[in-house]
Order: sequence, then C-alpha cells, then structure tokens
Amino acid sequence: METLLSKDEFEQQLRAKGAGYHIHHPFHVMMNEGVLNKKQVQIWVANRYYYQIAIPQKDAAILSNCPVKEIRKGWITRIIDHDGDAKHEGGIEAWIKLGLAVGLTRKDITSLKYLIPGVKFAVDAYVNFARQRPWQEAVCSSLTELFAPHIHKQRINSWPEKYPWIDETGLIYFKKRLIEAPRDVIQGLSLTLDYFGKTERLQKRALDILQFKLDVLWAMVDAIMLETMNIKVEGKTYTGQSQLTTLRLDKNYE
Amino acid sequence: METLLSKDEFEQQLRAKGAGYHIHHPFHVMMNEGVLNKKQVQIWVANRYYYQIAIPQKDAAILSNCPVKEIRKGWITRIIDHDGDAKHEGGIEAWIKLGLAVGLTRKDITSLKYLIPGVKFAVDAYVNFARQRPWQEAVCSSLTELFAPHIHKQRINSWPEKYPWIDETGLIYFKKRLIEAPRDVIQGLSLTLDYFGKTERLQKRALDILQFKLDVLWAMVDAIMLETMNIKVEGKTYTGQSQLTTLRLDKNYE
Repeated sequence: METLLSKDEFEQQLRAKGAGYHIHHPFHVMMNEGVLNKKQVQIWVANRYYYQIAIPQKDAAILSNCPVKEIRKGWITRIIDHDGDAKHEGGIEAWIKLGLAVGLTRKDITSLKYLIPGVKFAVDAYVNFARQRPWQEAVCSSLTELFAPHIHKQRINSWPEKYPWIDETGLIYFKKRLIEAPRDVIQGLSLTLDYFGKTERLQKRALDILQFKLDVLWAMVDAIMLETMNIKVEGKTYTGQSQLTTLRLDKNYE
Repeated sequence: METLLSKDEFEQQLRAKGAGYHIHHPFHVMMNEGVLNKKQVQIWVANRYYYQIAIPQKDAAILSNCPVKEIRKGWITRIIDHDGDAKHEGGIEAWIKLGLAVGLTRKDITSLKYLIPGVKFAVDAYVNFARQRPWQEAVCSSLTELFAPHIHKQRINSWPEKYPWIDETGLIYFKKRLIEAPRDVIQGLSLTLDYFGKTERLQKRALDILQFKLDVLWAMVDAIMLETMNIKVEGKTYTGQSQLTTLRLDKNYE
C-alpha cells in the first residue's frame, strides 16, 4: 500500500505540527495574556538566552557536516545573523538588549547565572542532534521557524500594552526575526521537502524530527514554568530543587 | 586566604549535596507515601528504563576516556553489573522485570514508547557529559550513588504494603543495587577525593559536577510528574504538549 504523501500533503503535515508549538504552552499563553510578573519575564529572557547562544553553534555543526558548498553558502547567513558582523550587531546582542529592557544587567544574562538545568538539557539536546546526525536531519529540525512569526507578532503587538514597563528597544529582536525567519525557512523547507519527500519512511522521519524540535522548545518552557510559577501537584504545592537546598553552587558546570 | 577543605570536610560537603537528591522530589515523596496510581508507577518505570540503558554507555565512555588500566579494571564491573554476563541477568533485565511486575509488557518497556522528551534530554545530558568531559569528572558525576541506598531501602520497605499489586519480583533490582552501589561508591568517592581534593577550585568543581548529576535526576522526575500528574499552574490546569496534539508520532527520533 502506497502512502507516500504528495509534496503539498507532506508540507501540510509538517505545518500541522504547529499544534504542538510552544505558543500553546501555558507559560506562553499567560505571557501573551499579560499576566506574567517581572521576575517571570526576566527568568524567561535569561534562560532563552542560552538557546540564542546555542543557535550559531548548532548552525556551525550543520555547516561542518555538509559537504555541499551551495547549501553552506545559504546556511551561513544564519550564523552571521545571530553573531553579527562589522555592520550589524546580530541576534544575540539584540537578545541581550531585550534582557536590559526587562531590567536585567548584561552580566545577569551573559553569566548564565539564572540558567535552569532543564533548559540547558533541552538546548544541548538540540545542539548535539545537529552535531551527531546527518546535516539534512539538522536542517529539518530548524523547521519550527515555520511557526515562529506568529509568536513574534504576538509579542510585538501585545507587549507595549500588556507590559508597559518593558522598554520598546527590547522588541528589536522579534522585529528582526520577523524579517529573517521567513527567508530562512524557505531554504530549510525546500531542502526538507526534497530530501525527505522521497519515501514514506523519510517523510515520517522528517515529521519525527520536527516533533523532536517542538519537544525541545516545550521542555524549555516546562522547566521555566516549574522554576518561576506557583505550581500545585495533585493539590499540593510543588517545591523545586532550588527551593529545597541552598547548596546549589555555580550552575555553569560545563 | 586558604579555604582548601580537608579530606573529611570535602567528603562532608559532597554528602551534604544529598539535600537536593530526587528522594525529596514531590513525585518520589508521593511514591513513598503510596499514593501513586498504577499508570503513574508504570510511566515512571518505563521512563527510568531509559536511564538504566544509558548507564552502561555512560560507563563505557568513562573507560574509553581513561588511560589507566587499574581504574578501568575496577570500573568495568559496572557495565557487567548492568548488562549481565553468562551467569547473571544484570540490572537492565532486572529493571525490565520491575516493568513486568507493574503490569507493563516487555515491549512497552524496550520500545521506549512512553519515553518523555524531558527525560530523554536529561539522560542524554548525562551520557554526553561522560563522553565529552575528562574521565575524572564523569567518575565524580556518578556520586549520586552516595544517596541511592536510602531510596532503594524506602522502596523495598514500603512497596509491599503500599503497592500490594506490584509483584515482589519487581523489587529485585533495588535489592541488587543495595549490594552493588556501596561497593561502586567506594571507588568513585576515593578517586574523587584524591583528584579533586588538591585545590579549592577543583573541590568546587567536584561539588558543581555532583550538582549537575542531581539536576539530571531531578529534571527526569519533573518531566514524569508533568506528564502523569494533575498539575495546576497559577491556579489553572496545566495542559501538556502530548494532550494538546494527537500529531505526536514515534518518539524514538534518534
């Protein structure tokens, strides 16, 4: 029985994975509703910074595994977008500006002092995936970019009203990504549809890889939620490890 | 100012890290109180299996990075304990027996069909740590064994009464580890006290590494808790990704 999807059907199934995008995570739903307090926003920004600094390493791993010059020439833009160049500051610096806009110091952010273990494990899983798997699979894992413009627009639209205490310079990162992400996704989606479109098994593999990346993003927010929010487990107050012990030392254990 | 700890003080600080051991995690507290339902126990056993099968790979990474024959000769016992040999079934098989005792099929367990992403990310972080860091650091990361006998004894003592539906053959794993863990910890602790005992900086490093491993165990149970328990976030019911979407396919994406 042939169940190979047409190119359109395959793309549609990839896009349908958006149902599990972290925009639907309770933490992000509450962020969009404007009910997060300052500390919750700050811890989210500080933790998401670890993801931001991992992205160029993830993309460099893809370059490092890819023997096709034409593809590297397209993909390298992502590293430059994030790291910046002589003329542009880049996405990592824009994220630090967001951190400043929410009241963190530069050192609060770059020291990773607020980094939550569950966030680190999820982000590292993504970088290690790109290092250890064929470059086509790592390209496919980037496709959560399909869903990113929506969440960026949400923030640009709702934050000035919902979080008036956040300086608007903080929104530059999201505005910048609104321009970059759609351009990036064209290359990633086109490579994925071609490479994984050949057999039913490859198509399923691509859907699983995209699920993995959705899981990375979701697990990050789970960890941030557990660390910063009022959680009840079976009716009882959740006490996290960091509340249990003052013995935790420097979290930058690697 | 000299703040190098004496050998005894150093060991005491390592042992004090037990305050953050996952025995204090709400999920394990409830497990010990006997209030977990069958599904919660099953998902915990199925997920913890992924940790069990990672252990020999972690220990093999240590052997692979260690140039000292005498140390390898001691450490290799761990792999044999877990994988078994001609005469003994080994810890992985004992864990599968636990799975059968709680009502799972062998395939439920070995297929990893219940594996939760956050658990996978945490366990993989541990294996990758052992692969990528010096073997002395990986040895140090094993020292949560210092705290394990207590949790094993808890289960052996409380389960027959609290969970009469679990066949007692399921307890073999814990009984086995009660014998092995204290023996294993002698080598790990002795190597750690010697190697990391030399400078204040190394002592702090050892404490951070042990914290990392505590974080791995804690993050695993966080993910299991979020997947299986009734969670309220700021008063509202938490909806996990797997409840949001039926689009999740095979989770064994690597």
